[in-house]
Amino acid sequence: MKLLILAGDGIGPEVMAEVVKVIEWHKRQGLDFVVSHDLVGGAAYDAHGTPLTDATMERAQGVDAVLLGAVGGPKYDNLDFSVKPERGLLRLRKEMDLYANLRPAQCFDALADHSSLKRDLVAGLDIMIVRELTSGVYFGEPRGVSREGNERVGINTHRYTESEIARVARSAFELARKRSNRVCSMEKRNVMEAGILWHDVVEEVHKAEYADVELSHMLADAGAMQIVRAPKQFDVIVTDNLFGDLLSDCAAMLTGSLGMLPSASLGAPMENGRPKALYEPVHGSAPDIAGQGKANPIACILSFAMALRYSFDLGAEADRLEAAVEDVLAEGLRTPDLGQDEDTRSVGTQEMGDAILKALD
Amino acid sequence: MKLLILAGDGIGPEVMAEVVKVIEWHKRQGLDFVVSHDLVGGAAYDAHGTPLTDATMERAQGVDAVLLGAVGGPKYDNLDFSVKPERGLLRLRKEMDLYANLRPAQCFDALADHSSLKRDLVAGLDIMIVRELTSGVYFGEPRGVSREGNERVGINTHRYTESEIARVARSAFELARKRSNRVCSMEKRNVMEAGILWHDVVEEVHKAEYADVELSHMLADAGAMQIVRAPKQFDVIVTDNLFGDLLSDCAAMLTGSLGMLPSASLGAPMENGRPKALYEPVHGSAPDIAGQGKANPIACILSFAMALRYSFDLGAEADRLEAAVEDVLAEGLRTPDLGQDEDTRSVGTQEMGDAILKALD
Ligand SMILES: CC(C)[C@H](C(=O)O)[C@@H](O)C(=O)O
Ligand SMILES: CC(C)[C@H](C(=O)O)[C@@H](O)C(=O)O
Repeated sequence: MKLLILAGDGIGPEVMAEVVKVIEWHKRQGLDFVVSHDLVGGAAYDAHGTPLTDATMERAQGVDAVLLGAVGGPKYDNLDFSVKPERGLLRLRKEMDLYANLRPAQCFDALADHSSLKRDLVAGLDIMIVRELTSGVYFGEPRGVSREGNERVGINTHRYTESEIARVARSAFELARKRSNRVCSMEKRNVMEAGILWHDVVEEVHKAEYADVELSHMLADAGAMQIVRAPKQFDVIVTDNLFGDLLSDCAAMLTGSLGMLPSASLGAPMENGRPKALYEPVHGSAPDIAGQGKANPIACILSFAMALRYSFDLGAEADRLEAAVEDVLAEGLRTPDLGQDEDTRSVGTQEMGDAILKALD
Repeated sequence: MKLLILAGDGIGPEVMAEVVKVIEWHKRQGLDFVVSHDLVGGAAYDAHGTPLTDATMERAQGVDAVLLGAVGGPKYDNLDFSVKPERGLLRLRKEMDLYANLRPAQCFDALADHSSLKRDLVAGLDIMIVRELTSGVYFGEPRGVSREGNERVGINTHRYTESEIARVARSAFELARKRSNRVCSMEKRNVMEAGILWHDVVEEVHKAEYADVELSHMLADAGAMQIVRAPKQFDVIVTDNLFGDLLSDCAAMLTGSLGMLPSASLGAPMENGRPKALYEPVHGSAPDIAGQGKANPIACILSFAMALRYSFDLGAEADRLEAAVEDVLAEGLRTPDLGQDEDTRSVGTQEMGDAILKALD
């Protein structure tokens, strides 16, 4: 089971160090993980002048799962667009063809009071946002800033093919079958023709292959409203790359558990039957707290739990790791992002990682 | 002072009927409003086979302010894209060149408990989202669904010119000067070149003309997070057409006052010095409750208050109308959308309108 760790920038290396401990623990239990490390994002730019070298890209294609920390930071704000840290991550997503980005928005019981939403609206929340990750306005051509007459014009192209929509819709329906069997698809078909195609293809796939799953459609603006009004109405949400970016961040934030949320980006099965896969926390590189040892490693650790489940079919091991996380929360351990009250104890990154290891035993 | 009323679909006519009473009241006070009525959206399609006739378009160009109710409904879901109800509204926005969509997200004191957010996060909230309304992916070309090889492809184009960005940025800075003097601009410059142009032009306008205003920038996904985490951090937010659609709906919903929120869409000054202008509630046509006399007319009435202020420079009259609305809320009157408790009294559309009229006296 080959893993490539790309810790990246900001708090990436700190939180990934705790994941490495968790991997070591699993190796001691007899699981045969082979781990290698490489650079991505600003760290790769600093070393090689590019946010992802061809050599790293090749290594990523050769492993079973890539574990990514985070990319970006103010230091790189003025870099040319083509070498910004984010381009490294986007290249991985595109070239590995990781079309289904699974973003659970889950509210941990111990943290329900930490949400900006009222407790009863989020306690027990467990929705899965499936975001298309390889197409749309992120990758469409033509794109760029050019000059027309006296002024500059900025262009990006939102583009989806039928097969791109169909495959991510299938991912959503498959997931729904293992959950509460409901999918809500979001687009803006009232103003975008590409939204009509999105809607129609999701309908067609549903009718032909997943008629047993309950399907609904919502305009993305109404979806944003409903996510903040009554998030528990949803089970699986499927949407495009850009809407998925905003809606999943919005949903993640309102769980009160942003520092807790993992994600999986999955592509087609490889020869060994495992899907191409990259796992990363939903949070970013958090440059404001980087290097201070106070970042929450849980999102990154739970991303590894997703790897256990989706790449290696080790569901029991994933459950056990997730239970260990719940345990330390129940004990009252909190990194600073999770808030404090009289029943909790403030810990740093390493202490949190160590506590999870102990809970695993 | 010429007004064109386009009540539209769903609850549009019901809520607009209450606005007409408010206008009549102002006429009795000596204000010289000349009111005409016409069709838009599904109502226009039913009568003429198009969601906005050329004749109506011409009338809209000839008045000082258009008052719009709402457009759309399930009845029209299967119409061809080109004649969908929304196209009527989009044509008005585009041909009147209403580039600055002002969407206040305000939490009314009496309603702070009705928000899905915790009271202290929204009580007293008063932010203004300035959304670009005539460009971006809503109008960019090429667009449409075509066939490529074996499959359909959906395309929409996100496109902004320098001058389109500069003029809406100016609107935001001007508004900020009359408020708390802070503007936050949102885009996705880390993945879209058009976002880089947006960022740069806002910076340039700021430096050249509005250096006294505090300017910050946020990625739109982080913006969505911050709006649900701590909305009071914002004063004026300026963003593009599509991000503005989602972010303003998200902000509107979390005030707990969706049925209360007005909007103004403003263009360049006409010969008489007044801006081209259209006013409409943020909420939609709410087909589920249409015709039942229980829609909240306040958003539509407050849109008329914005018309008093922005089209006719009648700030004192606008204040008075807004105060009348606050009065009836303080008295405990609530349409069903606003929730209920032991201190409130449930009323319908007309009763709410009548109470506001009485409070005006
Ligand atoms: C870092 C950035 C390119 C990325 C995105 O916009 O997709 C991030 O916001 C995410 O959601 O994974
Ligand atoms: C009705 C629809 C075309 C419109 C939009 O998307 O702009 C609406 O959602 C709005 O925000 O005014």
